[in-house]
Amino acid sequence: MTTAKLFDRVALIGIGLIGSSLARVLRRESRQTTLVACARSAETLEVVRRLGIADETTDDPQAAVEGADLVVVATPLSAYAGIAERIVPGLMPGAIVTDVGSVKAAALRDLQPVLAAPVHLVPGHPVAGTEHSGPEAGFAELFRDRWCILTPPPDTAPEAVARVTRLWEAAGMRVATMAPDHHDRVLAMTSHLPHLIAYTIVGTAMALGGDLKSEVVTYSAGGFRDFTRIAASDPVMWRDIFMKNRDAVLDVLQRFSEDLTALQRAIRWGEAEILENRFRETRAIRRSVIEAKQA
Amino acid sequence: MTTAKLFDRVALIGIGLIGSSLARVLRRESRQTTLVACARSAETLEVVRRLGIADETTDDPQAAVEGADLVVVATPLSAYAGIAERIVPGLMPGAIVTDVGSVKAAALRDLQPVLAAPVHLVPGHPVAGTEHSGPEAGFAELFRDRWCILTPPPDTAPEAVARVTRLWEAAGMRVATMAPDHHDRVLAMTSHLPHLIAYTIVGTAMALGGDLKSEVVTYSAGGFRDFTRIAASDPVMWRDIFMKNRDAVLDVLQRFSEDLTALQRAIRWGEAEILENRFRETRAIRRSVIEAKQA
Repeated sequence: MTTAKLFDRVALIGIGLIGSSLARVLRRESRQTTLVACARSAETLEVVRRLGIADETTDDPQAAVEGADLVVVATPLSAYAGIAERIVPGLMPGAIVTDVGSVKAAALRDLQPVLAAPVHLVPGHPVAGTEHSGPEAGFAELFRDRWCILTPPPDTAPEAVARVTRLWEAAGMRVATMAPDHHDRVLAMTSHLPHLIAYTIVGTAMALGGDLKSEVVTYSAGGFRDFTRIAASDPVMWRDIFMKNRDAVLDVLQRFSEDLTALQRAIRWGEAEILENRFRETRAIRRSVIEAKQA
Repeated sequence: MTTAKLFDRVALIGIGLIGSSLARVLRRESRQTTLVACARSAETLEVVRRLGIADETTDDPQAAVEGADLVVVATPLSAYAGIAERIVPGLMPGAIVTDVGSVKAAALRDLQPVLAAPVHLVPGHPVAGTEHSGPEAGFAELFRDRWCILTPPPDTAPEAVARVTRLWEAAGMRVATMAPDHHDRVLAMTSHLPHLIAYTIVGTAMALGGDLKSEVVTYSAGGFRDFTRIAASDPVMWRDIFMKNRDAVLDVLQRFSEDLTALQRAIRWGEAEILENRFRETRAIRRSVIEAKQA
């Protein structure tokens, strides 16, 4: 699919798995779009140049956004506030600023300073990823058939939202819009809690004694393997997600712990029927997920 | 790979995902082996006949094992004791009795009565599966490159262990031997706890209010999706696993809960460094799993 040129000049602030995958999409969609990649580390920028996925590279966020009609913030969430402050002087009036972060209330709050520019702020979250990170891990098909959730403030210009929508549609995504707080509650359940649990169980296994620990790795095919993949995700990105979506994560985590304790009790007291009924109920939801085309 | 005939007559007691996959392997390996499939339900036996994966079908375990030099018990664990009792009168002296259950101390205990026959008892656990169940879900390649763990009592005839080893090797498995209790502790961590957690988190999500619940399904790509697959596994089989491996499961579950509570506390108090360090540690174990060729 090749569409008309989406933007003239795109600044990608952060060029990891998501940023570099988006760069590849933009390359594929239009050769006329100029891509500027911005990263703190010289090593990352060298990789970007070697991969040939951007036209220009810089470690200066303000220089990166100059003349850009689209700015995509794709760093860990903890860097947002600093980036917002640094890019304000360089932003072109009327530019669109978006991001790809996994927590939207915090993203909106931390990027708020850019509105001094004046620009259009359209926070977004392409719900896609792998356990790999860095510009070499990116690929254009990462987004295909996944959802992208946009959380623009109510007064955002509809045309700005429409242009960001077209961007992600060009990447193969389905695009939905919702309020930031609601996004954060949904993702706390579907993504943040599962990652926390995966990190935890892999840690629990690592803490087992010598023999048992190596055998857990050897015989990981029975379920644990899936958790190790999830728990291999980027540590800094996930640290920031839990810091920035604290309340929603603590809420679903508390619910989960209560439910787990109830099953633990059923196991201890041999209440087979409670377990079987619970397992039958959960089996049904798999069909819903398959029907929602996420499987 | 085609090997010499492994057995003359094989009785499969239970013909679900694992039993029917093994039937397909035996079919592929040797046309001269007679396969007898035994199931309680007429419907299951009708499916087996339609699929053509067995030479004979019966709902009578005693009749099934008559003349068999290999008996494979492949039912949920709660049926073992009753099956052992029923097949004893039909067992051919010198036959090998094995099973495919996920808890080995209980399997050994519940199948013990067959030793009155006299036969060779070689409990086993092919660590393979999918979230699907029943004879139609089976396929010969299910076992390829996975581990099978045998837990024969110390006084078992080595030739009987060797023949069961050759069976699973013919299915493409790597075969290891260990003590039943040790198996149960390893699998509690690698398989039983992950399944319990997956069942729990899917249940937690289902209990959310209306809007949120349907959105959890829609936006499940971020981690939750993997859990729904695991939580779609057979409810009766898993009920039995938790009933039969209670102590080992409760032990790793307690460890997991403590570790999760520690991370919960770090989130609540904003202790970013604790989270990041933990996430870095767990990322490393993924490489071990890939190196162990289980990924």
